[in-house]
Amino acid sequence: MNVSLVQLKEDVTTEQVAQLQTEVNKLKQKLKVRQVAFSASLMAGGKSGNQNIGPFSADTTLVYKNVQTNIGNAYNPNTGVFTAPVRGAYHFEWWVTYNNGGYPAGAVLVKNSENVFMAWEKQGSASNGVTLLLEVGDVVFVRLVSNTVARDNQHHHTTFSGHLLFPM
Amino acid sequence: MNVSLVQLKEDVTTEQVAQLQTEVNKLKQKLKVRQVAFSASLMAGGKSGNQNIGPFSADTTLVYKNVQTNIGNAYNPNTGVFTAPVRGAYHFEWWVTYNNGGYPAGAVLVKNSENVFMAWEKQGSASNGVTLLLEVGDVVFVRLVSNTVARDNQHHHTTFSGHLLFPM
Amino acid sequence: MNVSLVQLKEDVTTEQVAQLQTEVNKLKQKLKVRQVAFSASLMAGGKSGNQNIGPFSADTTLVYKNVQTNIGNAYNPNTGVFTAPVRGAYHFEWWVTYNNGGYPAGAVLVKNSENVFMAWEKQGSASNGVTLLLEVGDVVFVRLVSNTVARDNQHHHTTFSGHLLFPM
Repeated sequence: MNVSLVQLKEDVTTEQVAQLQTEVNKLKQKLKVRQVAFSASLMAGGKSGNQNIGPFSADTTLVYKNVQTNIGNAYNPNTGVFTAPVRGAYHFEWWVTYNNGGYPAGAVLVKNSENVFMAWEKQGSASNGVTLLLEVGDVVFVRLVSNTVARDNQHHHTTFSGHLLFPM
Repeated sequence: MNVSLVQLKEDVTTEQVAQLQTEVNKLKQKLKVRQVAFSASLMAGGKSGNQNIGPFSADTTLVYKNVQTNIGNAYNPNTGVFTAPVRGAYHFEWWVTYNNGGYPAGAVLVKNSENVFMAWEKQGSASNGVTLLLEVGDVVFVRLVSNTVARDNQHHHTTFSGHLLFPM
Repeated sequence: MNVSLVQLKEDVTTEQVAQLQTEVNKLKQKLKVRQVAFSASLMAGGKSGNQNIGPFSADTTLVYKNVQTNIGNAYNPNTGVFTAPVRGAYHFEWWVTYNNGGYPAGAVLVKNSENVFMAWEKQGSASNGVTLLLEVGDVVFVRLVSNTVARDNQHHHTTFSGHLLFPM
């Protein structure tokens, strides 16, 4: 009688432990997938002097070539495009520096084909920030607004950063 | 003798498992409550053209009507007010666009009745950011500074974003 | 025979539970060390009126004296220096307000001895943001660029904020 009682308890416990292990694994995975963050500036590293991009007649994707941080490799420095590796909330910020010439500074954050928020300044540098809910595979990038100019140099003024806030 | 030994071990294990389950539940809850993030711009969606808010003789709460993201529904687009759903550290950023007229651009982030940090620019767009420790029910919003003007249009320049960094 | 079977299961379970406890403890620790965030503005609290810092002939560390938030005490308001308490990804933002005089506004974020990204504006306020992977003990601070001026007053315009995104 004692023995069968022990077996009953034992069965329950084994099941509980297996379930706990599953839950712990999910938590570990949730924490691990949070590790997505990048930060890049426009002009490639190793160069110096002012580099002006634009003006163009159409909005044009900015390719930030100087990668400062790219944890999770979700940002592609060859295309300027960030691709969401997991469903979740992401925060982005971008700064575009005024060229001190006749053109405004303007840059719009694009999610897939949607213009989200725009940084635009007639006679000065412009910036903005936004938090977006992204599905796996959604792409986010910054387009230089038509008839505006972005300047960068070896001091890294014109930048684009983003990171996962939490998976969902 | 063997049987009683097994029972002793079994009792200890059951207790451990129950305690572990409690700890895992707490961790799951902690990760779940992190899901608070919003991003909104001033002018209601579906409109176009420049909209100027102000100047007013007193600081006036900005009601950002175009909600881009509102995970956790802690931001109220009818009042412009964010209410902290859990105790924790929160990060906020706000951009207010210059109207290219005679008025500066100015906006102050308010926590309950305290002016925290101010964005202000005489002849250009202004922005700022801050991280705050909030108690449950604390409110955070942005006030247009008296005698300043904020401009927005269909490109979404004047924005307010915030998110929970971690619960405490 | 029944008894020995129970003992075998029991041994396996005890081991599993101990391993689970270790994993749960690690998760708890990972969530706990995330609690690092600060936000400060340049001019000490309790003062009023405009305060101009600079111009100096060399880049000079800005000591943000008015601490709004300092969870984890990783920011030192006596030196202006943030020291990473754990290895991980950190996000920083800084705003430097234009003095409306003859000098530009300029401030560079420094990681140890490396100038990372620069905020610089000829005739207006400047700002920037960046995400960095830091090792334990890495220091991050903001230097006023030579021949520029930063202004602050009781409204808290010139600010520096940072927080841990996730440990690694």
